[in-house]
Amino acid sequence: MKTQINWGIIATGGIARKFAEDFRFVENGTLLAVASRSQDKAQHFANDFHIERAYGSYEALAEDPDVDAVYVATPHDTHVELSKMCLEKGKAVLCEKPMAVNAAQLESLLDTAEKSGIFLMEAIWTYFMPVVRQAKKWVDDGRIGNIKMIQADFGFKTPENPKDRLYNPALAGGALLDIGIYPLAMAHYFAPGEIADIKASAIKADTSVDQTLGMVLTYDDDIIANLTASFRFQMENAAYVYGDDGYVKIHGNFWHPHKAVLMKDSGIEDIVEDDRLSTGYDYETNAMTQWLLEGKKESPVAPFSWSRKSVETMDKIRELIGVKYPFE
Amino acid sequence: MKTQINWGIIATGGIARKFAEDFRFVENGTLLAVASRSQDKAQHFANDFHIERAYGSYEALAEDPDVDAVYVATPHDTHVELSKMCLEKGKAVLCEKPMAVNAAQLESLLDTAEKSGIFLMEAIWTYFMPVVRQAKKWVDDGRIGNIKMIQADFGFKTPENPKDRLYNPALAGGALLDIGIYPLAMAHYFAPGEIADIKASAIKADTSVDQTLGMVLTYDDDIIANLTASFRFQMENAAYVYGDDGYVKIHGNFWHPHKAVLMKDSGIEDIVEDDRLSTGYDYETNAMTQWLLEGKKESPVAPFSWSRKSVETMDKIRELIGVKYPFE
Repeated sequence: MKTQINWGIIATGGIARKFAEDFRFVENGTLLAVASRSQDKAQHFANDFHIERAYGSYEALAEDPDVDAVYVATPHDTHVELSKMCLEKGKAVLCEKPMAVNAAQLESLLDTAEKSGIFLMEAIWTYFMPVVRQAKKWVDDGRIGNIKMIQADFGFKTPENPKDRLYNPALAGGALLDIGIYPLAMAHYFAPGEIADIKASAIKADTSVDQTLGMVLTYDDDIIANLTASFRFQMENAAYVYGDDGYVKIHGNFWHPHKAVLMKDSGIEDIVEDDRLSTGYDYETNAMTQWLLEGKKESPVAPFSWSRKSVETMDKIRELIGVKYPFE
Repeated sequence: MKTQINWGIIATGGIARKFAEDFRFVENGTLLAVASRSQDKAQHFANDFHIERAYGSYEALAEDPDVDAVYVATPHDTHVELSKMCLEKGKAVLCEKPMAVNAAQLESLLDTAEKSGIFLMEAIWTYFMPVVRQAKKWVDDGRIGNIKMIQADFGFKTPENPKDRLYNPALAGGALLDIGIYPLAMAHYFAPGEIADIKASAIKADTSVDQTLGMVLTYDDDIIANLTASFRFQMENAAYVYGDDGYVKIHGNFWHPHKAVLMKDSGIEDIVEDDRLSTGYDYETNAMTQWLLEGKKESPVAPFSWSRKSVETMDKIRELIGVKYPFE
């Protein structure tokens, strides 16, 4: 029986570096290989993180018989193709969000996963954060009564640069897919019901993708989610779950938070704090490593049904705000 | 030349009591009279606040030749009728929000005000708070760059009681008119442009009025306002003005705040705090008293154009969420 999972990383950008840095906190896993389309870049990355194998093509990494699981950290528009390639070669896949840029793409990927019987998970790292899990436990334990509203904002400032991936429609750019997915993930995490209605407004960049978003989701159990996202300005980036008997505030940046408080009329009733040394990618990596060792085929925390809900919500919002990618 | 304004209060409910309590901080004004539909209630109120004259009808107060200005603090649906009565008898009017429950009612009231040439102001007390005024100054001085988004929430918890004014459609109940008007007022205060688009969703009470709201306003200068209101649960009730070079957070309860901070990437850059002893109604009363002494006919802070914008926005939102009052 396997006791150790060998990981590979596809891509060498900023998020891949953070993932590799956090790997020192992963148990029962080894970061064995990294791949770039450039052998130099791969080798440089491998040197930085003491990774044994550096590949100058993604295919080469996927062919490595010693690699068990692959983290796909390329731009959005390539996720489906590369994840499929890895699954077809028998590698478990942790794919960055959004795993697919629309529902049709996602179904084609899930089809491959189901046919191959290989583990595939969308990298919604926020769900694995200790602070977020404690916030969920408070809510599930009824500490704030019945959920009434969820609020979450993700705003940071980046210059309006049409050459930036974020602004490029051909690379599935825009605030929604890149960061709006996090406030939406908060809503999906805390609102148990089906989405009954969605309202959304966007400010577009000159490249026609959304740069600022306001979204209101209504659920069939009368919960409202009020969400925003922008890459044109910095926000406080807290998330709130409001109940009829108190609320939980997850302090900014809520997608990898260090603190949450449980508020009642009388003031703060409970606090959870996280003094981790990692950025926080290690939690999802540890969880997936464990599930692979246990022989699981799907993530209990972010199953295929979660990815479906996520992408279908974003498809609907893009329809409402009129953002269509050239490849669609 | 007049050096003192004699005030009267119409109604003796909770907000009238707070107004009267705060009157000790009003300069150049005397609280001369109070009126209720019950002589007993009026006398009781007058005794509590050492008010010289107590009237058992609103008309009697409006007839008092010594009264210069009247504060109208009755339920929403009576505002227009009572304000008109006072104006027609030559009394300046400070009328609680919403001054009118729809645009048609408002126009009829403004028509009376314009014909009479008497001062009339909607009691948007928030605009007179020192902390809010400092926040506005920071924004006007360009300290946060170009405004990008406004956020504000007003949530408190009240039992779902169909007999409560808040739940009664015949009294123009619902969260929007009662408290949603405050987050909207924040948007109107900080967003200089015209509203280009409004999205809104509501959860309704069994009485068919809105009890929880999510609203997204888009302005023609690409500012988004993301606002909520509910009387089913307690919220943090902060307001935010986000710019591309920092943001202002007005701490809860933002409608009569004690603190605001100016945030930059490097952290808190400026703070304003208010250690007033009043609830805060004295600021609007002082301002209006001064304007009356100066002979002004309209409020420079909340002119008729403000009331028009406010009620027209709420009319549109009620249309979107399907809330119509039986008298409409």
